[in-house]
Amino acid sequence: MLIENEHLKQFTSGFSRSCLQINGLLESDAELIRLDNKVLAITTDNIVEEISSGLYADPYQIGWMSVVVNLSDLAAVGAEPLGINISLNMPSGTGSEYLAGVGAGIEDACKLHKTHVLGGDTNWGNELMVGGTGIGIIRDDKIVLRKGVLKGDLLFATQKMGLGNAYGVSRLIQKKEDFNFYPKARLDEGNIVRQFATSCIDTSDGFIPAISNLMEINGMGYDLEQDLNDIVGDEIRSSIASEGVPPWMLLAGPHGEFELLFTVPESNVKKFLQAAQSIDWQPVYLGRAGGDPTLSFRLNGNSLSCDPSWIANLFTACGGDVHHYFNELQKINQSWLQQIFQN
Amino acid sequence: MLIENEHLKQFTSGFSRSCLQINGLLESDAELIRLDNKVLAITTDNIVEEISSGLYADPYQIGWMSVVVNLSDLAAVGAEPLGINISLNMPSGTGSEYLAGVGAGIEDACKLHKTHVLGGDTNWGNELMVGGTGIGIIRDDKIVLRKGVLKGDLLFATQKMGLGNAYGVSRLIQKKEDFNFYPKARLDEGNIVRQFATSCIDTSDGFIPAISNLMEINGMGYDLEQDLNDIVGDEIRSSIASEGVPPWMLLAGPHGEFELLFTVPESNVKKFLQAAQSIDWQPVYLGRAGGDPTLSFRLNGNSLSCDPSWIANLFTACGGDVHHYFNELQKINQSWLQQIFQN
Repeated sequence: MLIENEHLKQFTSGFSRSCLQINGLLESDAELIRLDNKVLAITTDNIVEEISSGLYADPYQIGWMSVVVNLSDLAAVGAEPLGINISLNMPSGTGSEYLAGVGAGIEDACKLHKTHVLGGDTNWGNELMVGGTGIGIIRDDKIVLRKGVLKGDLLFATQKMGLGNAYGVSRLIQKKEDFNFYPKARLDEGNIVRQFATSCIDTSDGFIPAISNLMEINGMGYDLEQDLNDIVGDEIRSSIASEGVPPWMLLAGPHGEFELLFTVPESNVKKFLQAAQSIDWQPVYLGRAGGDPTLSFRLNGNSLSCDPSWIANLFTACGGDVHHYFNELQKINQSWLQQIFQN
Repeated sequence: MLIENEHLKQFTSGFSRSCLQINGLLESDAELIRLDNKVLAITTDNIVEEISSGLYADPYQIGWMSVVVNLSDLAAVGAEPLGINISLNMPSGTGSEYLAGVGAGIEDACKLHKTHVLGGDTNWGNELMVGGTGIGIIRDDKIVLRKGVLKGDLLFATQKMGLGNAYGVSRLIQKKEDFNFYPKARLDEGNIVRQFATSCIDTSDGFIPAISNLMEINGMGYDLEQDLNDIVGDEIRSSIASEGVPPWMLLAGPHGEFELLFTVPESNVKKFLQAAQSIDWQPVYLGRAGGDPTLSFRLNGNSLSCDPSWIANLFTACGGDVHHYFNELQKINQSWLQQIFQN
């Protein structure tokens, strides 16, 4: 059971839901509202902890990310962005140059994704928060939620993953400042995914937390046919090769990279891959859905399995302490190597 | 010139605008986006300073207000709410009972206004922020913005004002805890206003700041025919009669009461008043638009005029110190009485 989900369920347990809303609680990356023959997609995402922890320090990057976190949720439901409302909460000493940097990041991220700031709200508080609400539209009747996986569906990702956590390791553990992280939301890919997939989630919280979410919502496990270490992008692997970090750990951490993780029924795969090819995109095949809610995977060629929610909860269980968390991941790695050795 | 508007213009100066957006910056209480033959209304409003200053302390009231501030913006454009996304930023020690109180206030305010929480985002920070983004829809082609006042238009309010600042005085200056403030957004009234008015703004920042906003955006003044003290509700006046607070001051302060302030052309007045009567509502006539951007008004039967932006900026100019601010308002009152005496 994911701790964050439990927390949310508790807060929202008394809320009645709109009969226009398609998705239930936690069943979708964005809220989907029926509007005649269309669907509105609405998502709110604010950046707080990433700033206070030092993960994002550059004002331009903070502005950029505040847009991308929201657009990525729209991508995961395959919506076309109509725009974004920005929420800004600033400490009273915030300088106008800093603020201009945040604004430039917001505008550049909007431009890249062909969308616009619509409005927003600014407040004075005692810590910086930048975020917003993204509004999107779906113009046909094809809908994809996190919920809907069928046994035997093929699991894909838009691309190999691990970049977000590689950035996190670089910034918070290695204290490097030269790692550029300006991710793009997968809007074009999401629009295709929506037409063929039975489920979709973004990897903004990391790959293992994302698959754990899919597993919890659908009550079904996954058998990853790709080696866990191979799911990490080649360049990312080589960048951390000398640092004693097994690649799979970059799939575990809570700072993801805004890829999409989704399931396609066997019967749709051919058409899906054709559509992907039409935008020059090669989806990454990962494995299949089915069976008990367990994650079966290969590590260095050996078969293992785990409860991914345990890994997904680990950062919270470590009180958000990155060094403690990193040590706990190393322990998991050791236990897996031991299992492999004993087999 | 309103300080808050200048600040916003600076931050947003580099933002390109969507060609689907009907309103320009600051021209509307909610952002209006064309969607085929309909219009989406989107507004973001977060409560931060009202919590840190102690103005709102009860979790239920904080939850209630986080909904109403957003629905009131939808009311000012006459939109029908589709729902609200909640933004919650909590200090790490926030107890589950406190949180349940916030949630109950949110749900009860939604119920009263026949709307729903759609989703949202929760974060852990070092101070409490509760807010959200309200989404509404306008199903015909009648639009009202803050901008659009014509010379000679009649100025109305949904009701006499001053309640919000009376609450502020009670809470922050008199340190009383028995003043209940659970305002309602004027959604039904706003729907009528939209069909007949040339401009509309809510009084969430107080009556004088609201009229100052209308004046700045439209470049036109107002002649109030009602005595300034009479614009304050009778019950509110009697509640502060013994406290040495001239009633008009309750129109000046930055904590409003979610009435609507709007202009109706002479040619629409009859139909407008008929429509208002159909929902048992008696709009309050205040005066007329026209001439230089000055506010002409009567005080105790005498004619005066002022630049309302000076009063609207005063709270910010006093660094948000309520006692300093209150003293400055008393000075304005003295100078007005002196002018009356000299005439």
